Amino acid sequence: MKISHFICFLLLFIPIINFAQSLQEKLGYAAEDKLLIIHGDDVGVSHSQNLATFQAIQNGLVSSTSMMVPAAWSKEVAELAKSIKTPDIGIHITLTNEWLHYNWGPEAGKTDVPGLVNPLGHMFPSCAEVAQNASPEQVEKEVRAQIESAKSMGIDVTHLDSHMGCMFYGRPEYMRIYVKLALEYNIPAMINQEIYKGLIEPNPALFEGLEVQKLPIIDQIIMADEKAYANGMEEFYTDALKNLPAGVHVLLLHLAFDDAEMNAVTSGHDSFHAPWRQKDYDFFTSEQAKKLLEEQNIKLITWKEIGKLL
Amino acid sequence: MKISHFICFLLLFIPIINFAQSLQEKLGYAAEDKLLIIHGDDVGVSHSQNLATFQAIQNGLVSSTSMMVPAAWSKEVAELAKSIKTPDIGIHITLTNEWLHYNWGPEAGKTDVPGLVNPLGHMFPSCAEVAQNASPEQVEKEVRAQIESAKSMGIDVTHLDSHMGCMFYGRPEYMRIYVKLALEYNIPAMINQEIYKGLIEPNPALFEGLEVQKLPIIDQIIMADEKAYANGMEEFYTDALKNLPAGVHVLLLHLAFDDAEMNAVTSGHDSFHAPWRQKDYDFFTSEQAKKLLEEQNIKLITWKEIGKLL
Repeated sequence: MKISHFICFLLLFIPIINFAQSLQEKLGYAAEDKLLIIHGDDVGVSHSQNLATFQAIQNGLVSSTSMMVPAAWSKEVAELAKSIKTPDIGIHITLTNEWLHYNWGPEAGKTDVPGLVNPLGHMFPSCAEVAQNASPEQVEKEVRAQIESAKSMGIDVTHLDSHMGCMFYGRPEYMRIYVKLALEYNIPAMINQEIYKGLIEPNPALFEGLEVQKLPIIDQIIMADEKAYANGMEEFYTDALKNLPAGVHVLLLHLAFDDAEMNAVTSGHDSFHAPWRQKDYDFFTSEQAKKLLEEQNIKLITWKEIGKLL
Repeated sequence: MKISHFICFLLLFIPIINFAQSLQEKLGYAAEDKLLIIHGDDVGVSHSQNLATFQAIQNGLVSSTSMMVPAAWSKEVAELAKSIKTPDIGIHITLTNEWLHYNWGPEAGKTDVPGLVNPLGHMFPSCAEVAQNASPEQVEKEVRAQIESAKSMGIDVTHLDSHMGCMFYGRPEYMRIYVKLALEYNIPAMINQEIYKGLIEPNPALFEGLEVQKLPIIDQIIMADEKAYANGMEEFYTDALKNLPAGVHVLLLHLAFDDAEMNAVTSGHDSFHAPWRQKDYDFFTSEQAKKLLEEQNIKLITWKEIGKLL
C-alpha cells in the first residue's frame, strides 16, 4: 500500500472514530472518567421539597433539579433559583397527580387538554390512565405550556425529564414529543442507553424527520427503589457510588423533609414518601457522601454542561 | 270603629309584623339571644390551614368553615370533612391568589376565564386587579365552577362567602352574581346589614328579577384587623365576645399553625400570616374562649341552620 493510499484509508475511519467517541470524551473528559449528575427531582411540588432540594444544591452535592410546573409551589422555585450562582433547572414534565389529598391540574388549562384530567380537573394518578385518555396532541400542548411557563417565571430551562416516566411509558407518540421538543428548544432530554435502545432505536419511523442523533445519550439512570429503601438507603447509595463505572450517569433523588407538609402530601403512600425523601436529603448533605465522591473520584456535572454539545 | 273594621285594621299589620321579625326569631330563638357563627376561613389553601381549622371544629368552638376550591389542598378538605358529624362547609369564593410564592389558577380553567389570570395563568393578587380584568360573565363562570367542583368532591355546600371580599368590592355586577347564585343553589350568602344597605338596597335595578328579600341578612361580620393584631388578639376576641349584642353574627377567623408550610405560604406578608393564624387557633381552642362563650350565653349556630329558612 502506498503512503497516499494509507492516508486515504485512515481518513475513512475519522467519522467512525468521532462517532465512537464517548459522551464524556465529547464533554472534554477522559474515557475513564466517572461523571455524575446528582439530580433532585420534583421541585415545585411542595415547600418542603423546594427547601430541601435547594439546600442540598447550595451544600454542593446535588448538581441539578427539575421542576413540576403545574404544582402549587413552582413560583417558589423561581425565587429559590436566585440564591444559586448557576442554577441547573429542567422541566420535570408532569402529566400525573399521584397524591391523594393534594391537587393540581394541567398548565395548559384543564379545558384545553381535557384528556389529561379527571372530572375534578386534576391530573390522573398514573401514567396508564394518562395513556388511556390523553392524545399526543394534548400531551404536546401541555409539555409546551410547562416549558413556556417556566421560562415566563424566569427559569433558564436546562433540560427535560419525565415525572414517573409517563413520557417513556405512556404512548409511543409521547416519546416522539419528548425528543421533538428537546431538539426544538435545543436542550438535552434525559435519555439513557436503555431508553434509547428500547424506545428509540427499534422504531425509526416514529422519529422520522427528527435529528435524534443530535441528542446526547447518557449511560445509566440510577434511582433507589422499594427494595433499596427496605435494605437501607445509605447502603444503596454507598454501593452505587463505589461501583459507578466510567461514563455519564444521572442519579435521581427526591429530597424533602419528613415534616407535616410532606407527610400530608405523600399520605397513603409507602414509597417516595416523606421519610424516604428525608433519607435522600440526609445522605446527600452528609460528609460521608462528600468523602465518598472524592475518594471515588466522581466528577459532578450538570445538564447545562451536556447541553453545550447541542 | 266597629269590631270588624278593627280586625281588618289589625290584619293589615300582620305582614309588617312578620317582616319586622328578627333573623334570630325566624330561626326559633328569642329576640334577645346572641347567636354566633364562629367561622374558619380559607380551608383548602394549605395543609396547615386544613388541620388547624378541622381540629378547632372538632374541638367545638368553630362552627363553620368555607373552602378555597382552586387551591392545592381542597381535596384534603373533602377528606377531613368526613371526620365531622355535621360539617358546615361553604364556598370561600376565590378570585385572587395573594401569596408571593404559592400559586393557583381558576377552577374554570385558565383559558376559559382569561380575565381572571396573569400571564402565568395564576390569579391576580388583589380585588382591584380582578375588577380591572375580569368580566362579570367570567366571574360567574368561575364561581359556578368552584361550587360544582366542591359538590363533585362530595361537599354538601352550605353557604357562599367571598375571599378578600372581591365579590363585594370588585364590580357591582359581581354582587348580583353572588346573590343570584345563592338563590339558585338555595343556600345563604354571607351578607350583613352593612353590605345589604351599602351594596344591595341602594341599587334595586342591579338586582331586578332576583328575590333578594328571600336571603337571610345577618347583623354583624366581625374580624380582627392589623390594629387588633398589634394590640393583642386575645384582647380583641375577649372584647368582641363580651360586647356581642343580640342578633345573628359571624366571627371570621383564619386558623392555621405557625409552621414551615404556613410561613412559606404567607411569606412577605405581615398580616393574616402564619403567627396571626396560630393566634386564632390558640384562642379558639382554649378553655378561656369556651368559658367566655358560656358566661356570655352566646349560642353557636351554623350556616346550615340559617339555610333552612330558604
